[in-house]
Amino acid sequence: MSREHNHLVIMAGGVGSRFWPMSTPECPKQFIDVMGCGRTFIQLTVDRFEGVVEPQNVWVVTSEKYAGLVKEQLPQVPEGNILLEPCRRNTAPCIAYVAWRIKKQDPQANLVVAPSDHLVLNPEEFRKVVLRALDFTAETDAIVTLGMKPTRPETGYGYIQADHSAASLRNKGIFRVDSFREKPNLETAKEYIKHKEYYWNSGIFVWSVNTIVNALRIYQSEIADIFENLLPVMGTSKEQAAIDKEFPKCPNISIDYAVMEKADEIFVMPADFGWSDVGTWGSLITLANRDAQGNAVVGENVQLYETRNCMVHTSQERRVVIQGLDGYIVAEKDNTLLICKLSEEQRIKEFSA
Amino acid sequence: MSREHNHLVIMAGGVGSRFWPMSTPECPKQFIDVMGCGRTFIQLTVDRFEGVVEPQNVWVVTSEKYAGLVKEQLPQVPEGNILLEPCRRNTAPCIAYVAWRIKKQDPQANLVVAPSDHLVLNPEEFRKVVLRALDFTAETDAIVTLGMKPTRPETGYGYIQADHSAASLRNKGIFRVDSFREKPNLETAKEYIKHKEYYWNSGIFVWSVNTIVNALRIYQSEIADIFENLLPVMGTSKEQAAIDKEFPKCPNISIDYAVMEKADEIFVMPADFGWSDVGTWGSLITLANRDAQGNAVVGENVQLYETRNCMVHTSQERRVVIQGLDGYIVAEKDNTLLICKLSEEQRIKEFSA
Repeated sequence: MSREHNHLVIMAGGVGSRFWPMSTPECPKQFIDVMGCGRTFIQLTVDRFEGVVEPQNVWVVTSEKYAGLVKEQLPQVPEGNILLEPCRRNTAPCIAYVAWRIKKQDPQANLVVAPSDHLVLNPEEFRKVVLRALDFTAETDAIVTLGMKPTRPETGYGYIQADHSAASLRNKGIFRVDSFREKPNLETAKEYIKHKEYYWNSGIFVWSVNTIVNALRIYQSEIADIFENLLPVMGTSKEQAAIDKEFPKCPNISIDYAVMEKADEIFVMPADFGWSDVGTWGSLITLANRDAQGNAVVGENVQLYETRNCMVHTSQERRVVIQGLDGYIVAEKDNTLLICKLSEEQRIKEFSA
Repeated sequence: MSREHNHLVIMAGGVGSRFWPMSTPECPKQFIDVMGCGRTFIQLTVDRFEGVVEPQNVWVVTSEKYAGLVKEQLPQVPEGNILLEPCRRNTAPCIAYVAWRIKKQDPQANLVVAPSDHLVLNPEEFRKVVLRALDFTAETDAIVTLGMKPTRPETGYGYIQADHSAASLRNKGIFRVDSFREKPNLETAKEYIKHKEYYWNSGIFVWSVNTIVNALRIYQSEIADIFENLLPVMGTSKEQAAIDKEFPKCPNISIDYAVMEKADEIFVMPADFGWSDVGTWGSLITLANRDAQGNAVVGENVQLYETRNCMVHTSQERRVVIQGLDGYIVAEKDNTLLICKLSEEQRIKEFSA
């Protein structure tokens, strides 16, 4: 397969409220160097598609508020590829918009849709998996989700049950989906990971543009009609005004509900490339480099004394001295400081209100 | 007694390293609004002499580094009254310098010498006590120290043992000093406060300029000679250059060792005006207004959750959210943050190094 038709769609509209004050409505998680590696999450997301998707085929869907951040952080992405939602309508309208937009320009397009704020620890393996999935969707009408091999009974993720009986596809490492499961309780999660056919739902999708457009036409005609009608203005100077008027009419619905749980040709490709949605400070501390006392530190000038299992996140120029903390988040950004037990991090939304 | 000869000498050369990062070598404790009341310690020190000493009779001895801060914070003090030590030589040379300088201008001067970074919770009572002491020293050759009635077996202060047998003076509430005692251990401190004749040494001295000049001539002729020789240039444009040359020749010695423990006419005036040298974060939390959970907060935008017995000191514009801390210092200044158990505060010097 030629790679010229490969496209990457990055969904970058999230507000990242759980990582306050590191993440703020003005600069959410995807635009932050969360890991202290010198690259923001959205930059890392694009980086890992190097050799898979050309820069001119990278698309970002976000809100007007973040357009400046996207341009600044992804200068290689053409400005016309930055699509602005006038309001948030969950993932289905977002994906529909970009699908019709790409279809007009490249009817043979083959798409990867990915969140902008997830982490992949093994980009090499990631590229292999994605290329395999793209090869598959280029030749079929398959809707593919990447399923992560679970390493623990995580209750923060949805699960995908694969149909391991489909022997013909097993050879390719791709399985039909038996069912999608909501975030389980701990007991259920433990049950899932006992059975080898359950995978974490990564929210990374692969499909050809024709496949997703057709699926939306069948299962979400209301959404499909809106973007079908907008086709003439897409890619023109009238696009934004028309989107601003029509997009809000879309129902608020996730692509999972809108398509995945309804369509037949749904597949899961199990993979293991060190993925995390980095949805909590707790997950971040698990993924970050930790010192012998279990501390994960982002910041160049941080001194720790008798401090264990803490997540410290501050800016390069900031000096921080911490003595005698165990199991805390210490996070600073701009003019705000948070000190909070890791075990209480679900209350951060309340604190930041 | 007329008050025109009353002078206030403020010693403001300290570097306040125990309150890092609130206090830094660039802006030590005496120049900081430690209590969050809108006035710095040195401003509060001058404030409490209102009605006792005229602004033109306020003198500040500090280093060149802090001359700008003094001028900025005490605009009512004449610039010529700000004396600059070229190096630190403890309190005896500092007091000698200012004594000769004042003597040249006002030979009838009656002085209060006070540190710049102590706290007095009852300024009304303070004024009464100081005026009484000044009345006494105006008529006598007495060297008077203010002795604080101890409220606890404090090991961080020196003690003064009064001679309560001197009945004649007891009527005036002033006693001869029996002995000066170094900072005691806890056991000794407990013994001291059982006996009513022990007082904390506040480091606040009262004497006429003639008395202290004569005492220095007798007990510290080396120091006295230096300033006697400088008398012709004092108050002239040549003063600073001469001081810069001669002052470093003074021995490094405290006024307590140099004079107090040697002279005969030493008195202590017991007083109770809510004094503290605010030498530690622990003492600060004791003195500050505390909430029902025992937290003392300086800062306009601080939210506490499940937090007890903490000292939080930050700037007005800074937002701070703290959850689940008990018995910690959280202090921020400029580009530095300290989180440290109150019980470990003696290590702050080490942390800040």
